[in-house]
Amino acid sequence: MNKIRIGIVGYGNLGRGTELAIRQNPDTELSCVFTRRNPSDLKILTEGVPVYSISDIAEHKNDVDVLILCGGSATDLPVQGPQLAEMFCTIDSFDTHAKIPQYFAAVDEAAKKGGNVSIISVGWDPGMFSIMRLYGNCVLPDGKDYTFWGKGISQGHSDAIRRVEGVKDGKQYTIPVEAAVEAVRSGADPELTTRQKHLRECFVVAEEGADLERIENEIKNMPNYFADYDTIVHFISQEELDRDHSGIPHGGFVIRSGKTGENRETSHIVEYNIKLGSNPEFTSSILVAYARAAYRLSKEGVCGAKTVFDIAPAYLSAKSGDELRASML
Amino acid sequence: MNKIRIGIVGYGNLGRGTELAIRQNPDTELSCVFTRRNPSDLKILTEGVPVYSISDIAEHKNDVDVLILCGGSATDLPVQGPQLAEMFCTIDSFDTHAKIPQYFAAVDEAAKKGGNVSIISVGWDPGMFSIMRLYGNCVLPDGKDYTFWGKGISQGHSDAIRRVEGVKDGKQYTIPVEAAVEAVRSGADPELTTRQKHLRECFVVAEEGADLERIENEIKNMPNYFADYDTIVHFISQEELDRDHSGIPHGGFVIRSGKTGENRETSHIVEYNIKLGSNPEFTSSILVAYARAAYRLSKEGVCGAKTVFDIAPAYLSAKSGDELRASML
Repeated sequence: MNKIRIGIVGYGNLGRGTELAIRQNPDTELSCVFTRRNPSDLKILTEGVPVYSISDIAEHKNDVDVLILCGGSATDLPVQGPQLAEMFCTIDSFDTHAKIPQYFAAVDEAAKKGGNVSIISVGWDPGMFSIMRLYGNCVLPDGKDYTFWGKGISQGHSDAIRRVEGVKDGKQYTIPVEAAVEAVRSGADPELTTRQKHLRECFVVAEEGADLERIENEIKNMPNYFADYDTIVHFISQEELDRDHSGIPHGGFVIRSGKTGENRETSHIVEYNIKLGSNPEFTSSILVAYARAAYRLSKEGVCGAKTVFDIAPAYLSAKSGDELRASML
Repeated sequence: MNKIRIGIVGYGNLGRGTELAIRQNPDTELSCVFTRRNPSDLKILTEGVPVYSISDIAEHKNDVDVLILCGGSATDLPVQGPQLAEMFCTIDSFDTHAKIPQYFAAVDEAAKKGGNVSIISVGWDPGMFSIMRLYGNCVLPDGKDYTFWGKGISQGHSDAIRRVEGVKDGKQYTIPVEAAVEAVRSGADPELTTRQKHLRECFVVAEEGADLERIENEIKNMPNYFADYDTIVHFISQEELDRDHSGIPHGGFVIRSGKTGENRETSHIVEYNIKLGSNPEFTSSILVAYARAAYRLSKEGVCGAKTVFDIAPAYLSAKSGDELRASML
């Protein structure tokens, strides 16, 4: 059997995670990596796999079955997504929830023009969590949704801390409030404010002689990022930050609380929860599974943009329908 | 918009649950109920909906878009499933795991002959739990699966108790062993024996003068059902059984424990868990969501047998792709 040839665009945490995930899926192989850096400066983990400049990507159209876009949602994907969908089947993890409809439309147009399948917004949220919200809503139509994130590192909030004057380095953990999670699990259907759902815990390395009180206040009162939350700020040394906070763990919960019966007298709780040792390694494992789906759909003649909602679970697996029914149903 | 006209075959707990679930899905309506009993003896909850004899079902081919088969897997479905799939789009909850491949083949042949879509083995296990096993395996290919059932009433084990001489009535709860669940959640990847995973707790009403010690021994040593488990037997009165154990709660967990990284150094835990106030009401809510999928697939010209693995999540929802992407992704 021919392996599915996967190309990676962008070799940061997510790109490296994708390279590792490909090794765990024997029906896939890494074909090449595309980078904005000077290709000869980039050392990847896999021996013998070429690294190309992203500006030469059109020349490698025939080397790749599915391209996994590992850039960011703020500036990379809005440009790359539609551009590359015209040339390749693509998978991306576009996660700016509010802009998904317009991003979908742009990618859909390009993918249809090129006759390719592009699955957007793949990962765990959007992604697996979205699927769980959808299943929850469909099997318990009379109910409430709850999504909690963490405990885990938020890149955006860590960046925000580091922009505060006098801050040398810092990391921020998003932490679900235990009491809120327990109230939801109990079936109490609480109405929860932003503050009641998540805590924010910051580990901050200050520059020498900086005014710690001012830094703490500035963080805690930062609009959008921290002002609506209970925020804890710890000042620690760079050594401590590097030693204790260099991982990229994450996690979270999607809970659907629903009622059935003649008079809503029966309660049900459905919960999906994840505890991830590494956010990018888990996300990229999902990207590779959806690359398989894109490849298979494309072989069937399908084209256009898709999301995880449009992909039947069986398409993610290398096993046949017979095998799946016999072993996993 | 025309509503999806659903017919129910068999009016036990699952049939009644389906009738209630239809009320929660405004794009569906109950068209009719088919029974083996004398139709005039059957009083259903919904005013004005006809009850027909199952022997007349062929006459009502045009009254129904999707038929939900609410019979049992032991004797009803193996006959009804293939027979009715030739005449109707069908949904069933066939749950004899070992016989799924042959059941699928029989239904597939009939559904293709009739040009219908039949989704088999819908519910929570097989069903939602199967989907979670599949997603878990695909997104974490290097890992281990764990499925726990309960706490909940097992119909088969309750029946087995009631067949013991001197037993007047009884109910059996399957209970996951807390320590085993915690060990799995911790990422310890334990090897668990049958006995280590589940407890069985029995509430037994004995006939007057029966030898309780013999009954207890006979239950605890019953092969297949109890001998491989730690089993607790309580003798209680019929009043206590009726008062405290008349519900049909259930639940369970599917946990995928997986490794990623260059040397499997990163651990992830993905867990799906459900706590159900009523097993048949939850199961039937799932059946109705999949009836919507069968209806839509059939309108697209698809035919043949399907399982939950073959159905893209979006097909379960009455919302459009645009709506789903904007609200749930």
